[in-house]
Amino acid sequence: MLKPFPVHSETGLGFITMLRSVLRPGVILGGRRTPLNPHGRTICLSGREKAGTLAFSLRKFTQTRGSGVMIFRQLFDRDSCTYTYLLADPDTKEAVLVDPVIELAERDAKLVDQMGLNLIYVMNTHMHADHITGTGLLKKLVPSCQSVISKESGAMADVHVEHGEVVKFGEQELEVRQTPGHTNGCVTYVCHGEKFALTGDALLVRGCGRTDFQEGSAETLYESVHSQILSLPDDFALYPAHDYVGHTVTSVAEEKEFNPRLTKSKEEFIDLMNNLGLAYPRKIDISLPANKVCGLYNLP
Amino acid sequence: MLKPFPVHSETGLGFITMLRSVLRPGVILGGRRTPLNPHGRTICLSGREKAGTLAFSLRKFTQTRGSGVMIFRQLFDRDSCTYTYLLADPDTKEAVLVDPVIELAERDAKLVDQMGLNLIYVMNTHMHADHITGTGLLKKLVPSCQSVISKESGAMADVHVEHGEVVKFGEQELEVRQTPGHTNGCVTYVCHGEKFALTGDALLVRGCGRTDFQEGSAETLYESVHSQILSLPDDFALYPAHDYVGHTVTSVAEEKEFNPRLTKSKEEFIDLMNNLGLAYPRKIDISLPANKVCGLYNLP
Repeated sequence: MLKPFPVHSETGLGFITMLRSVLRPGVILGGRRTPLNPHGRTICLSGREKAGTLAFSLRKFTQTRGSGVMIFRQLFDRDSCTYTYLLADPDTKEAVLVDPVIELAERDAKLVDQMGLNLIYVMNTHMHADHITGTGLLKKLVPSCQSVISKESGAMADVHVEHGEVVKFGEQELEVRQTPGHTNGCVTYVCHGEKFALTGDALLVRGCGRTDFQEGSAETLYESVHSQILSLPDDFALYPAHDYVGHTVTSVAEEKEFNPRLTKSKEEFIDLMNNLGLAYPRKIDISLPANKVCGLYNLP
Repeated sequence: MLKPFPVHSETGLGFITMLRSVLRPGVILGGRRTPLNPHGRTICLSGREKAGTLAFSLRKFTQTRGSGVMIFRQLFDRDSCTYTYLLADPDTKEAVLVDPVIELAERDAKLVDQMGLNLIYVMNTHMHADHITGTGLLKKLVPSCQSVISKESGAMADVHVEHGEVVKFGEQELEVRQTPGHTNGCVTYVCHGEKFALTGDALLVRGCGRTDFQEGSAETLYESVHSQILSLPDDFALYPAHDYVGHTVTSVAEEKEFNPRLTKSKEEFIDLMNNLGLAYPRKIDISLPANKVCGLYNLP
């Protein structure tokens, strides 16, 4: 029964545990706020806006206790250029980690501990091809947390989320938006309260994820990004899962104006993406089998 | 007259321009809010605080126009692990860049342009040994901006700042605090309005800059950090000039509790820092001569 996804015996996590897709009270079913149009919706770009309106990415630092303002930490993996996000409710201390990397799971667990947080979910935006997720190792380091990924990803997890559902931690909420195209199972997590979205590989700063493997589709990605991400208000901050030149954040307004790929017409975008001629992903053959079981495969 | 700091003829910047240390209206002299105690002040750490009080690093995203909330962008150089900061006033669009890296100066100039900002100062926290500052190249790319560094650094710049002075851009202010120890000329830029500080190499996340070259002194660094940085309110966010494991920010409270070096006694700290046995900095022999002239030396 353990094949084809053998679980390392030292994980302390049984196969049945991985298979049970139990929705915790924190995950709100229903409440589908944003109907997914399967054919996508193309945003008409109304020409170049005045650059003066593009001053985004603001942060305000205030004492958290009782303020209700979300705790937010961005973390980086220099090897795979992956951003991991730690979000938490300042009052209840309930926390989620999004897109952790296995080599840095101990860093993340240490930070969670030092900040006095209660990690309840370790989430992924999709099944990554370029690194092994830290999810499995984090479940070992912080046994109380549960793994979360989209149902469409095809990966195992404690909780499978679907488009329109809301992940709740304390008073904080993340709306799940299905944004396929890089992979079939990609989702974007949208925080309406704090006006930001974690876009995974669907939308990167001035770029987007590739669409030439893992059920990728340039047409689907174009429709996903325009209907589910760039349709958010202009001042929403967008946090990607990767950046290769040191950008840490962007905004809806900026990408609508300056994204060199997604400001093209759908036809031009498809042609561009289908002719990138990228190399075969270096780690895909070890990452995908491991990420199908949330990084529990051959866990160190 | 150009020796010993020859200026590349293509920079378009004359030697006299570099030498004039003209204070622009934006730099407020006087107003020394924080007297520097030359002997430093040692903070008595009152034991380990409850981790639950350490939930910091919050960000709030709001529309900027008229809000007065500072525009803030953190940027990263993967090679030298340097963080560059772009700060701007949302109303006047006046902007400053802190600690840019020469290889990424074009990225920074492009972002400034796309965000519709008016770059007035390119500032450094100190004269770096591990990379060439992007200051000189940025002055070429954005001719209207001026270079800023501390008088104690010994480096040339358009504006030399001293302890207690305030750098102003629009309605935003950065207080200059002298924090020597890594180098003699290190400063920390403190933003009281938004409750954060750019600490350069004086204080890193769970660490600090080395003290074994460039007039470094472990004793001086210990005194600087405790009297000028860890004396700020607990909820001030601290943004370092480097991080090597992917942390992007920390807070005063966290470093007072978890910094493995600076929570030691002064004597233990000095002993530790004097016995790190670190390798000779890889780029110091090309970086220091270039950074003495704000990166204008042998500019590509």
